Amino acid sequence: MTRGRFITLEGGEGAGKSTQAKRLAETLRRRGLEVIETREPGGADGAERLRDVLLDAPKEWWDPVGEALLLAAARRNHLQHTIRPALDRGAWVICDRFADSTMAYQGHGHGVPEGTLETLYDVAAGPFGPDLTLILDVPAETGLARAASRGTVNRFEALDRAFHLRVHLGFHDIAAREPERCMLIDALADQDTVASRVLAAVDARIAEWAADADAVDGSQPVVE
Amino acid sequence: MTRGRFITLEGGEGAGKSTQAKRLAETLRRRGLEVIETREPGGADGAERLRDVLLDAPKEWWDPVGEALLLAAARRNHLQHTIRPALDRGAWVICDRFADSTMAYQGHGHGVPEGTLETLYDVAAGPFGPDLTLILDVPAETGLARAASRGTVNRFEALDRAFHLRVHLGFHDIAAREPERCMLIDALADQDTVASRVLAAVDARIAEWAADADAVDGSQPVVE
Repeated sequence: MTRGRFITLEGGEGAGKSTQAKRLAETLRRRGLEVIETREPGGADGAERLRDVLLDAPKEWWDPVGEALLLAAARRNHLQHTIRPALDRGAWVICDRFADSTMAYQGHGHGVPEGTLETLYDVAAGPFGPDLTLILDVPAETGLARAASRGTVNRFEALDRAFHLRVHLGFHDIAAREPERCMLIDALADQDTVASRVLAAVDARIAEWAADADAVDGSQPVVE
Repeated sequence: MTRGRFITLEGGEGAGKSTQAKRLAETLRRRGLEVIETREPGGADGAERLRDVLLDAPKEWWDPVGEALLLAAARRNHLQHTIRPALDRGAWVICDRFADSTMAYQGHGHGVPEGTLETLYDVAAGPFGPDLTLILDVPAETGLARAASRGTVNRFEALDRAFHLRVHLGFHDIAAREPERCMLIDALADQDTVASRVLAAVDARIAEWAADADAVDGSQPVVE
């Protein structure tokens, strides 16, 4: 059986990640794939408990390094109990936020050193990461206005505009530094248009994976 | 105002840490000190939430590295909201378990690499540690029998005898490697005798601190 693919959707508040994750999952299911939709923080029983401890907490409970430690603990639980088992049985996993959000929010946004976040990721996840990351890009102000129109304001949405600008630039920095893994998607259009762009990006990557697999098959003939 | 002192009590299951922490706190209070009694995991609002998430969880939720990540997050919250504020206002802090338990249980007991645990401690706490650590020493089997007689069995008490022997040896290793900070206390006797030994150890260290302070005062006269 072929191992499944791990696709993460990233971006600031109100970028449309949850909507696009659901639409992408539905499209891939119509092609006959088993697809798991999940999210961070959370996505497994222990990690969802930690999501509550993080998001329902008084602001002062967790400073940015404390948030990063909690997110690392939650990520390990999520990987062990949801993501890896799904990939191993051949399912595709579509995850609404993953480690790039930690780098953008706690790192670029709050100033936790990049090396600290990389160390925590390594402890939690080891040499494992997404096969493809789609970064949905909208201007920070537009995203915040969209998020505000949902009527609830969470721990992160409540932070100031300068913070969200740093997060936005952080995602651009991540996309620029890891072009093999990341694709930046203009998400300012209507949902159908953004869904088409997301699918085009995924299909382009699927074609590359297929070409890579053919190359491996061609260069390493099976000896019987 | 003089900064308070941070004293940790460590040891395996059933070593008498909680009882001796309480007795030591009472004795120091009778001398006129403000003394805070606290514990790990826990000791602050966020950390107590994580204690529940850790200790009430199904065994498979958290592997030893996951436990270490949770403990690091809880420790940071505990330090920021309970321990440091108390020390800063001159109170003494007596803590039932701290980082040595993580090294003994997750490290020696479960095999998480020492370097990983040191890294997580550094992220959570930075260059900060107990002024004095009292390791209450009873044979692993005696301690487990005592703990079992309390009628409840927690996540760690339920582990096998070989695990608890490794933990016991782990505490001895810690005491041997950090003799300046740690004192190993024979805790097999009755509670009064152990309390006398604990107090003697603390008073010996208090005398050293006083001598150090005098030496500093003598060598660095105040220039007015």
